[in-house]
Amino acid sequence: MQTPWEYRYAHRASKMGSSVIRELLKLTEQPDVISFAGGLPAPAVFPIEKFREACNTVLETQGPQALQYGTTEGYKPLREMIARHTARYGIEVSADNIMLTSGSQQALDFIGRLFINRGDYVVVESPTYLGALQAWNAYGAQYISVRSDEHGMVVDELEAALRIGPKFIYILPNFQNPSGVTLTLERRKKLIELADKYGVPLIEDDPYGQLRYDGEHIPSVVKLDSDFRGPNGGHYSGNVIYMSTFSKLLAPGLRLAWVIAPPEVIRRLVMTKQAADLHTSTLSQFVAYEVAKGGFLNEHVKLIRATYKERRDVMLEVMDEVWPREVHWTRPEGGMFLWGVLPEKMDAAELLKKALERKVAFVPGAAFHPTGGGHNTMRINFSYPDPDTIREGMTRLGLLLKEEVVRESKQKFMYD
Amino acid sequence: MQTPWEYRYAHRASKMGSSVIRELLKLTEQPDVISFAGGLPAPAVFPIEKFREACNTVLETQGPQALQYGTTEGYKPLREMIARHTARYGIEVSADNIMLTSGSQQALDFIGRLFINRGDYVVVESPTYLGALQAWNAYGAQYISVRSDEHGMVVDELEAALRIGPKFIYILPNFQNPSGVTLTLERRKKLIELADKYGVPLIEDDPYGQLRYDGEHIPSVVKLDSDFRGPNGGHYSGNVIYMSTFSKLLAPGLRLAWVIAPPEVIRRLVMTKQAADLHTSTLSQFVAYEVAKGGFLNEHVKLIRATYKERRDVMLEVMDEVWPREVHWTRPEGGMFLWGVLPEKMDAAELLKKALERKVAFVPGAAFHPTGGGHNTMRINFSYPDPDTIREGMTRLGLLLKEEVVRESKQKFMYD
Repeated sequence: MQTPWEYRYAHRASKMGSSVIRELLKLTEQPDVISFAGGLPAPAVFPIEKFREACNTVLETQGPQALQYGTTEGYKPLREMIARHTARYGIEVSADNIMLTSGSQQALDFIGRLFINRGDYVVVESPTYLGALQAWNAYGAQYISVRSDEHGMVVDELEAALRIGPKFIYILPNFQNPSGVTLTLERRKKLIELADKYGVPLIEDDPYGQLRYDGEHIPSVVKLDSDFRGPNGGHYSGNVIYMSTFSKLLAPGLRLAWVIAPPEVIRRLVMTKQAADLHTSTLSQFVAYEVAKGGFLNEHVKLIRATYKERRDVMLEVMDEVWPREVHWTRPEGGMFLWGVLPEKMDAAELLKKALERKVAFVPGAAFHPTGGGHNTMRINFSYPDPDTIREGMTRLGLLLKEEVVRESKQKFMYD
Repeated sequence: MQTPWEYRYAHRASKMGSSVIRELLKLTEQPDVISFAGGLPAPAVFPIEKFREACNTVLETQGPQALQYGTTEGYKPLREMIARHTARYGIEVSADNIMLTSGSQQALDFIGRLFINRGDYVVVESPTYLGALQAWNAYGAQYISVRSDEHGMVVDELEAALRIGPKFIYILPNFQNPSGVTLTLERRKKLIELADKYGVPLIEDDPYGQLRYDGEHIPSVVKLDSDFRGPNGGHYSGNVIYMSTFSKLLAPGLRLAWVIAPPEVIRRLVMTKQAADLHTSTLSQFVAYEVAKGGFLNEHVKLIRATYKERRDVMLEVMDEVWPREVHWTRPEGGMFLWGVLPEKMDAAELLKKALERKVAFVPGAAFHPTGGGHNTMRINFSYPDPDTIREGMTRLGLLLKEEVVRESKQKFMYD
């Protein structure tokens, strides 16, 4: 007889849906659609030749090690390089503070697995990163949303959330996905104080920290927490679990990211990873180290910044010219996304249908709001399409929006 | 104040221990210890030059795609290649039956996540693969052990276990890790019939199927299940979830394995992977495809077989010569491990301490028995050490065992 698989799945499987975005991307992947829906780096900034050289060097000089099983915590020279890089920002950190993961998504999954009991509350920004929700839904998380404005999470509204007793606070302080906004220094400090007051850990997700195109660098939350606590004899043991990735600096196809946390948390994450996939690809780690060593990243990131800054500028220029005044949008100082807010009566999912008829796509924002709302918001990516494509696509979207705004105001008039 | 992390962890964290073996490996990794404790392929069989060429070709011709984000189910040409390879064994299978994972450990983890509710029973062989226990402990699995003998699981004893209502049956039919034994054709058929009778799915873990050194190939459980059910219009939709890996055929450092399952299970596994790590390294997948295509694996596996056959033969030869008759061991027809059974009164963990004094190591077998027992058993790896090292190490172990057997029989005499 046939196996009734549907009834064999664990309870948690009912919480595991497919990502709205990844499903949407399939629709928008028709070659004639201009898509601002994805979150892909521009292939133009991949240092392909450097990768080719690195593969050759690694396989010629360390072939047997690069193809063999490796340690769960990750390739030590790479962890030490990350420690040195991090220490440069004034954080007391050692290789014992660092674990490598197969992309930041895996770090999010492990954090969920290690911390979240079914029904536990997690504080998130509203809107927040969809991948984190997807990772933690499977563990039965519930969410408390704290509102964001153009300066990031409205930290004054955080204290009420903390009194609910959440497991942790999840925050993307730099050029947030999806909103593009950056948390101010003042709010960062206040966030750390509040988290400390209530004893609630902070999860800092920082994929885009290096991708700032204008304005001043703001110290990371883990750095400010490290300052807040003072010296600790060589390693960090504060209240923040920090993560970043090579996906935006080198190439996402490597699946290589890292977590910085107190050593006792790293030890637990290592046990989690051991049971989950033993370790991240040794070849990826050796090659990434070979590419990144000797200061290459410091140079390479300048190319990435120049490329994305131009694309962001073109996008904002077209929006300023063509988009109707009734629509509002963020002006990100870095990262890969900006965020549009339509008039309250409009629905971004409905707008997407019409946009697809004109062969242009974005992500409607509702899915980024785990506790509801955001039907009139949209995420727009500027890192992947080239400037001409951005100009064409954003003009199409702007003209559509003008028509929709006129129609919407007429309707309003009719019902007034 | 300090964050009391220990009290923040989820309940499941208490079930996540570090692998006994990986902890043990740290002890045995002193350079002067001859270790039969690991489960590593011999670096001598890594096709390093082929990898180097493949990296060059991939980066020269498909660089932007190989470094970009990829699909969750895996690189389609690679999935199609695996489907063709599988179909050659007479299984009706398509790319929709296949998902790529970051090593088989990840497939084990996903199967646990997708199927196991806390307290669910899982049927395993005794002894069984430690990595599976480690993956499923975190999800709160309980185990029902079914005894194995030199022909694999004693399937006649399975029916009683099935009447308990387990979630699935986990089996390694070929050259099992840790025991080295192979399930007979007759028992495979009986296993499929019993699983079908009670509607309990089978998880077939087959990392070593291609590594047979003598005797005849026995069809995989998924193939026999496919026959049992008859034609199904192009894809497999039976009662088995099968997994295998490139770790033993190409290189474990790639972290590349695959699952074969009914399409509806694959869809669920894809959702699971999306939340867990988005996808497996695109670069690893492109490079593995480039290395494997054009029939390279069919040739390369002959080198692996010849290398490991020699090592197994040397090991058995020394054991026959030097080891005391009171100790019994399996004579695997393939794979990477053999299994020793000491006299009932002896303890393999105690023996290991004495073995380490003589600079030789193995894995005591108790950990492979999730429901207890096996204190007098040991797993011995023959794929990693070269023949001379095997001769030296197994002689040392044999001489130690002779002394221990004499001591044990004297003690017995004293207490008689």
